[in-house]
Amino acid sequence: MKDNVKVGLLGLGTVGTGVVKMIQNHQEQLVHQVGCPVSIKKVLVKNPDKVRDVELDSSLLTTDPYEVINDPDIDVIVEVIGGIEETRKYIIDALNLKKQVVTANKDLIALHGSELQKVAAENGCDLLYEASVAGGVPIIKGLADGLASDKIQKIMGIVNGTTNYILTKMTKDGLSYETALKDAQDLGFAEADPTSDVEGLDAARKMAILARLAFSMEIELDDVSVSGISSVSKDDLKYGSMLGYTMKLIGYANQEDERAEVSVQPTFLENDHPLASVHDEYNAVYVYGEAVGETMFYGPGAGSLPTATSIVSDVLAVVKNMRLGVNGHSVLAPQFERQLKQADERFAKYFIRLHVRDEVGAFSELTKLFSTHSISFEKILQLPLEEEGLAEIVIVTHKASMENYQNVLSQVNDLNVVKAVESFYRVEGDGTK
Amino acid sequence: MKDNVKVGLLGLGTVGTGVVKMIQNHQEQLVHQVGCPVSIKKVLVKNPDKVRDVELDSSLLTTDPYEVINDPDIDVIVEVIGGIEETRKYIIDALNLKKQVVTANKDLIALHGSELQKVAAENGCDLLYEASVAGGVPIIKGLADGLASDKIQKIMGIVNGTTNYILTKMTKDGLSYETALKDAQDLGFAEADPTSDVEGLDAARKMAILARLAFSMEIELDDVSVSGISSVSKDDLKYGSMLGYTMKLIGYANQEDERAEVSVQPTFLENDHPLASVHDEYNAVYVYGEAVGETMFYGPGAGSLPTATSIVSDVLAVVKNMRLGVNGHSVLAPQFERQLKQADERFAKYFIRLHVRDEVGAFSELTKLFSTHSISFEKILQLPLEEEGLAEIVIVTHKASMENYQNVLSQVNDLNVVKAVESFYRVEGDGTK
Repeated sequence: MKDNVKVGLLGLGTVGTGVVKMIQNHQEQLVHQVGCPVSIKKVLVKNPDKVRDVELDSSLLTTDPYEVINDPDIDVIVEVIGGIEETRKYIIDALNLKKQVVTANKDLIALHGSELQKVAAENGCDLLYEASVAGGVPIIKGLADGLASDKIQKIMGIVNGTTNYILTKMTKDGLSYETALKDAQDLGFAEADPTSDVEGLDAARKMAILARLAFSMEIELDDVSVSGISSVSKDDLKYGSMLGYTMKLIGYANQEDERAEVSVQPTFLENDHPLASVHDEYNAVYVYGEAVGETMFYGPGAGSLPTATSIVSDVLAVVKNMRLGVNGHSVLAPQFERQLKQADERFAKYFIRLHVRDEVGAFSELTKLFSTHSISFEKILQLPLEEEGLAEIVIVTHKASMENYQNVLSQVNDLNVVKAVESFYRVEGDGTK
Repeated sequence: MKDNVKVGLLGLGTVGTGVVKMIQNHQEQLVHQVGCPVSIKKVLVKNPDKVRDVELDSSLLTTDPYEVINDPDIDVIVEVIGGIEETRKYIIDALNLKKQVVTANKDLIALHGSELQKVAAENGCDLLYEASVAGGVPIIKGLADGLASDKIQKIMGIVNGTTNYILTKMTKDGLSYETALKDAQDLGFAEADPTSDVEGLDAARKMAILARLAFSMEIELDDVSVSGISSVSKDDLKYGSMLGYTMKLIGYANQEDERAEVSVQPTFLENDHPLASVHDEYNAVYVYGEAVGETMFYGPGAGSLPTATSIVSDVLAVVKNMRLGVNGHSVLAPQFERQLKQADERFAKYFIRLHVRDEVGAFSELTKLFSTHSISFEKILQLPLEEEGLAEIVIVTHKASMENYQNVLSQVNDLNVVKAVESFYRVEGDGTK
C-alpha cells in the first residue's frame, strides 16, 4: 500500500493556488482521512518568476508540462490550466503512464469525456471532475453515490452563474437584458464576450456531463438542444410574474425507458419550485431519483476556494482508491445505448406570448388551431396593447409533445389575426408533481 | 486487507428491509466501489415467523441481539431498532468488540453521541449516522467533507417534516394549526401524539447532532433552546405574508470566535431565502462555510428507501475505511471547548405582534420603550382590529441582542396602551446577506 502520495499540478492560477493552499494547510486532516501524507511534487506554470500568493519552493515550478506528467514519483495529476486540444493530450499521456487524474475542465470533459474515461478505464485509473460542474457544489459525487443504489430519472440545473445573475437582476430590479448584462460585466460575473454564457453553451457542456453520468449513456454535446437568454424581454418576465412564474435558464435532462432528452432553455418555473429561489450568481442542481425522490444541491458555481474545495475532495477520493487498489472502478462503461427522445416523445408545458389583432373571433381562431394539434390551455391572459387594435395574449398550455408545438408554431403565423409570436418558453411546475 | 465484509443488522422494520434489499440487489456496484463483496450475516428480529417483504434465509434471523453482536465473523453492525438505553448498551458492546457501527438513531446520537464516539475512538472504530438527520439528504457527509478544508459558521435547517407539512398547509391553504395537524395525522405525517414533532424536540435532537459535528464542540441536547409551532396562528402567517415572509420551523446553529448558539424556533424567512421554498414534508439544511460560502442540501427527510440509501452509503464508507485501515479516524475528538453565547451575544431580528389601544400617543409610548433598549424598527404595520378601540401593530426590528428583547418583553405589558403581546418570532433575511 502506497504510503506517501505525490501530486503534480498543471496550472497555478486562482484555482491552482487555492489547491496548493488547501493541501499545505490541512495536512493533518488529510492524513486522518486517507492514512498517508499527500504533497505537491511539481507545478506547471507559464512564468516561474511571477510573484504568487502562495509559498512554494521555486524548484517545484516548471514550464515543461512533461516534467510533471513524466515524473515517476507523481501519482496524481491535477489539471487546472483549461483549454482543449493540448490539455486532452496531456491527460491521455498521463493516464497512459498510469497516473490518476483530477480536472476542473468542463469544456474538455463535455467534448472528450467519453474518450478520456475509456482511456482511464483501460489504464485502471481514476478520472474525476467534481469541479467541472457547479464549482463548490458536490453534484458529481451526489449523482455517483446515488447511482450505486438508485435510478436517476430527471435533472434540472441552474448551472451557469452569469445568466442566473442577469435574470435575477431583470426580475428583481426590472432591468433590461442589455443593462443587466452590462452590470454583470462590470462586476466580473460576465466576460467581455458573453456569448458562451448567455447563449447557453456553457450550461450545455455541464448538462452533457451530468446527463452522461446520471443516465450511463454516451451523451454528446451535440445531443443537447440549446437556447439562451439574449432575447428574453422585460415584458416576458412581467407577464410570467403575473401568472406566478420565475424565469431561469434551466438545463434539463430526463430519461424514460432508457431514452434520454437533454436541453438548455429559458424556463418559467412556478414560484414554488425549489429552483425558483436560487438567485444571483448561485448554482443549484435538482435531481429526481426513483428511490430517494427529490433532492437538490445548492451553492456557489465558481470562485477560487469553492472550486479548490471540490478538487481537493476529488484528490482525497483518488488517494483512498489508490490505497484500496480500486482505481478506475468508478469509471464504469456506459450501461445503456445512446437513445434520444424524438419530438413526439418529448412532452412539456409552454408559455406562448402573441400579439393578436383585437377582432371578433380572433381568440376562437387561435383556440381552433391549438386544439387541432391536441394542445389545450391551462392559463390565458389577455391585455390591450398600446398599439391601437392589438392585444397581448399569453397562453400557458397543458403538457403536449414538441411535435405538436412545432406544427402549431409553423402554422400560427398564417392566421390573419396573429401579428407575431413574441415568445415561446418551457414551463415547469413546483417540482413536487 | 479484508476481502469479504459481513454485516449484522439489528432490526428488520421498514428501513431494515430497505437496507437488505439494497445490499442484495446492488452487489456488483458495491464490489466495484469497495473492492470486495458485502453481505448480510445475521439479523435481529422480534418475530422470526413474520412474513416479510424481502428474501432472507430464515437461518439468518435471530431474536437474541448478542447472536449478532458477538458473532466473530461480523465486521459491521447496522442499528435500525431505535430506542435509547438498551440500544446504547448494544452499540457500546459492539464497539468494544471492535465492530464498526452504522446507526439511524437520532435520539440516541443526540443524547449519547459524544460518549459513543469516545468509545468508538478508543476502539479505533467508525460510528456513522448519516440517516439520523434528514433521512435521504447527505448532510452529515456534506458537513464532514467540508470540514477537511473549511470552517462552518452557520447552519439553518428544516429538519422536521411533520412541522414543515403543517406550516405549509397553514400558509398555502389557510388552514388553522389544529386542522393542519389533523390533516398531517390522517396522512401519516404526524403521530397520534405529535408533541415531539410540533414542540420542536425532534428538530432539537437533529440540531444538536449537526452543531456538535460542524463546530467540533460537545453540544448537548440541553444546550438547544427550543420552541415549537403549536401557538402559531393564521393571523401571524397573514401579517407575515403581507410583510414578505414565509414561516418555517428553523433549527439554527452559529458560531463566532468558538462561541456557539443553537436553537429551534418558528422563524419568518424573507421569501427569497433558499429555505423559504422548501415545502410540505421536505427537509433542507443550509450551511455557510468560510471558504465555500453558502450551500444547501434538500431532499426527503424520511421514508424507507431514502433512509436506507443513507445507511448503505455509510456502510460503504466504513468498508472502504476498513480496507484502508483508517477506521476511527473520522471520529475526531472535539477541537474546541464547549462555550455557549449568552443573551447579550445573541443577535437577531424579530417580528413582534401586539394588540394596542388605539389612543393618541400609543405608538410613541411603544417607540420610546423599544428605543430605551436600543431596538429600532425596520418595518411597521398597523391595522384596525374588529374589537372597538384596538389596533393590531406588527413590528419587525433591526438586529438586537436577546438581552434587550427580554428587557422589552418584561416591560411592554406594563404600558397602559398595550393590551397583549400576541407573538414574537425570529426573522431571517434572504440568506445572501
